[in-house]
Amino acid sequence: MELLKQKIKEKGEQVRALKAQKADQSLVDAEVAAIVELKKQLNGITGEDNKNKNKILLKVPKGTRDYNEIEMAIREKVFSTIISVFKRHGAVTIDTPVFELREILTGKYGEESKLIYNLEDQGGELCSLRYDLTVPFARFLAMNGTQSIKRYQIAKVYRRDQPAMTKGRMREFYQCDFDIAGNFDPMIPDSEVIKIMIECLTELDIGKFTIKVNHRKILDGIFEICGVPEEKIRPISSAVDKLDKSPWKDVRDEMTNEKGLDPIVADRIGEYVKLKGGKDLLEKLYQDQKLCANKNAKGGLEDLFLLFKYLEVFEVLDMISFDLSLARGLDYYTGIIYEAITEHSGPPTLEDGTKVARKLKKDSDEFDETTIGVGSIAAGGRYDKLVGTLVGRTNSDIPCVGVSIGVERVFSILLQKYKPEQVKANEVEVYVIAVGDGLMEDRMKVCAELWNAGIKAEFMYKAKPKLQPQFSTCDRYQIPFAVIIGKDELDIGQVRIKDMRSKEQGGGGGSSVKRSDMITELKLRLGKV
Amino acid sequence: MELLKQKIKEKGEQVRALKAQKADQSLVDAEVAAIVELKKQLNGITGEDNKNKNKILLKVPKGTRDYNEIEMAIREKVFSTIISVFKRHGAVTIDTPVFELREILTGKYGEESKLIYNLEDQGGELCSLRYDLTVPFARFLAMNGTQSIKRYQIAKVYRRDQPAMTKGRMREFYQCDFDIAGNFDPMIPDSEVIKIMIECLTELDIGKFTIKVNHRKILDGIFEICGVPEEKIRPISSAVDKLDKSPWKDVRDEMTNEKGLDPIVADRIGEYVKLKGGKDLLEKLYQDQKLCANKNAKGGLEDLFLLFKYLEVFEVLDMISFDLSLARGLDYYTGIIYEAITEHSGPPTLEDGTKVARKLKKDSDEFDETTIGVGSIAAGGRYDKLVGTLVGRTNSDIPCVGVSIGVERVFSILLQKYKPEQVKANEVEVYVIAVGDGLMEDRMKVCAELWNAGIKAEFMYKAKPKLQPQFSTCDRYQIPFAVIIGKDELDIGQVRIKDMRSKEQGGGGGSSVKRSDMITELKLRLGKV
Repeated sequence: MELLKQKIKEKGEQVRALKAQKADQSLVDAEVAAIVELKKQLNGITGEDNKNKNKILLKVPKGTRDYNEIEMAIREKVFSTIISVFKRHGAVTIDTPVFELREILTGKYGEESKLIYNLEDQGGELCSLRYDLTVPFARFLAMNGTQSIKRYQIAKVYRRDQPAMTKGRMREFYQCDFDIAGNFDPMIPDSEVIKIMIECLTELDIGKFTIKVNHRKILDGIFEICGVPEEKIRPISSAVDKLDKSPWKDVRDEMTNEKGLDPIVADRIGEYVKLKGGKDLLEKLYQDQKLCANKNAKGGLEDLFLLFKYLEVFEVLDMISFDLSLARGLDYYTGIIYEAITEHSGPPTLEDGTKVARKLKKDSDEFDETTIGVGSIAAGGRYDKLVGTLVGRTNSDIPCVGVSIGVERVFSILLQKYKPEQVKANEVEVYVIAVGDGLMEDRMKVCAELWNAGIKAEFMYKAKPKLQPQFSTCDRYQIPFAVIIGKDELDIGQVRIKDMRSKEQGGGGGSSVKRSDMITELKLRLGKV
Repeated sequence: MELLKQKIKEKGEQVRALKAQKADQSLVDAEVAAIVELKKQLNGITGEDNKNKNKILLKVPKGTRDYNEIEMAIREKVFSTIISVFKRHGAVTIDTPVFELREILTGKYGEESKLIYNLEDQGGELCSLRYDLTVPFARFLAMNGTQSIKRYQIAKVYRRDQPAMTKGRMREFYQCDFDIAGNFDPMIPDSEVIKIMIECLTELDIGKFTIKVNHRKILDGIFEICGVPEEKIRPISSAVDKLDKSPWKDVRDEMTNEKGLDPIVADRIGEYVKLKGGKDLLEKLYQDQKLCANKNAKGGLEDLFLLFKYLEVFEVLDMISFDLSLARGLDYYTGIIYEAITEHSGPPTLEDGTKVARKLKKDSDEFDETTIGVGSIAAGGRYDKLVGTLVGRTNSDIPCVGVSIGVERVFSILLQKYKPEQVKANEVEVYVIAVGDGLMEDRMKVCAELWNAGIKAEFMYKAKPKLQPQFSTCDRYQIPFAVIIGKDELDIGQVRIKDMRSKEQGGGGGSSVKRSDMITELKLRLGKV
């Protein structure tokens, strides 16, 4: 291809030279025709067609991706790990449509609502792709009058955000949600949800992680005693939420400049939201008379005392960090909130310990992925009012608490751990091989016998395959056993079974068994009895 | 609720009567106020709010549905059955985004293209929801330069069609696709795909079914020798495809009136497309000199001879019906095509054997579901040119053959077979019960021990639960074992294990075991060792 490009360039220079020399037009024409021909060849190679009408851009939409068989094998392992934890805690699963009536999603996501994907109005209802699984779950509860359920749902959600693919930040991505809905005694389901989050992340083996915990009521109490006007509480909360990726100075700027907060109030908030610790911090805040004079803050702190007691029973308290800067962006949380972070979560840090500032790629509106982290890998909280809001009556509230595992981010961490050759996508157990004249129908017959016995088997889709390519296929896909058939042996009712891993010898490769014993012998070797 | 409506109606009549009698206005007002009050109550029950601004229509978009935990348990059983068949034949799985660049889907679906869902243009690329899994699969092959793969994909697809929910005809629905891509010897992968389709439907246990088979080249040959102009071949093929739900007369009308075909040509086609049979029909057509003089028809018939030979080896030929009316709607098929039908597929038949005509519900644009069948429950065929079309060069063709299992239709058949109480959604194995004073933290501790040992366990989310509700929960969810803890027993290091199915007696319900033996004992009883 480079050669062709070079030739085209040379011809181009020749044309310019000929024109400069005022050469005969026929000479110029000949050179131009040659260039056209060369360009055709080049387009053929690069997949571009001369006819523009046939030219289709072969790519997936921005922020989405395909998963090949190796990636899927890892993903399925991740899902099955998570599902087994969810089921161990008694969860059932439900499913909801990928799009919802638009008005159901409206007003649930605060500043993030602008990221919702809408379906085109093609007549009929106005719909949008789901933004998370929580609002659809609340809609499900409201619609069905479900009073109590422990459910998980693993499904894709959609956000028109700036993607950072290698960090698992995508526009189409899976969420693995576990939620407990129902009226129960305080902090019992909340502590189990955190326990579940910890079990999932531990079993996924993603390395060290921490659970940051906070309480919306404590935050609201802090905002109230610092003097934030009521209508600014949610926007100021959104600003605080950015403290994990931006320094306090930037967040303070957002509060005072963008959101018009009195700088003195912002500084008061700053004193609180920089606090983090464990039970000690909880006790310290409980001594703060000004804070505890606020009903919200006091209630939140008491919730956390109880939560910490239960987490201690579950022997997971050492993984918890009470972090007053944790705010969570979404509007619907009403109680405790939490987020799991790993060493990969934040932006990279410089040698002096400061965080790398986010920046865009050169000549692009996309982030430079070396300047951002994967973010939180699991998050959730309590949302007691969402169902009531959907029904439109507060006496229809169903208290809920849940967690969402950001499986793409987990996946991006695991992809760095596994090498493709460590992952086996194909599960075939037996390859049926012919020696000699192809024996097409006999190979099919043997394979059908294996399938009917529940053995995973394949044969080569060639009427008369050579022996070597058949063996190579076994090696390439790490197929453990071969059944080798030949005319003479078939005639006396025999086949050979060869263990392809041990490269076992004997009887010209593999051991002869009676055709009628083939299934029993293979099941024995495959440990299927 | 009906009582309330009745009361409102009666009050309304009273008001009219009072007005007719010119009664005192205060009497009328009192009755009207009573009506307002009753309506409030009614709205409370139906979830409608007086304040219209809070009123959200709690429904899912037309043609979509939720799946509750019972339905999901059935669906997961269906999926795992299908996946185990696919894996037995050596398939790997891939995943693609739910939406594609719009131009990738353009021109692939013939008359059905109008049913594609578009995403709103919110800036950036124009995208549409996938209409099937086949075009995205071809795009995946083209993009990655994959030359050969045997893959399955189970995912939702989207069609803005007229839904018939109870028949499994929906706007959002799952497809389970299995495809073999690559250059192989003729009819070998094709016969395996049909074998796979038969294995899936047999193991799903949906009752009797038949596989209709035809060949695009035979159809094209028939159209050519009957005198259909080339540009009308695909539209006429689409008309023929409707023969499974419409009588020949209607299809002939579509050909001649809508699509401008010469009636004589239509009648010639009619002679062929009414034919169906087995190998005998194949042999008869091979004797038809006029037909076999056509290159397409001859090639198609020869393919079918080979296919039938292989299907005979696979011992499934008796399930095949060679049916010349089968055309399949989609543009991209180039070789054999097939469809699985059951007794539920066609519209209901009247006593005289004629098919019930499709009609709409009264005052609605939706079909009366009693007048339509579930349609085909699996279908597919060979599409050798799709990848090349996407790349824009015919020398990039990758021959493919595949099948798509219409799992919602299968599901609608199975839903009629299973009663909800036969399906167990919850898999909890042990319920931890306290006798006496709640023992909240002890129950949590025991439960955590069970979870850590991989046992599925729950406890009641109540600090001080009564005994009876705890036992009732076991019964309601058919939880097989209870671990019962009481203060006195815990003090001497004991718990009780009770088999909740046998209602076993002894020691006040359940047998005492040492706390340290609890896990071993439960694993033994659960068959987990």
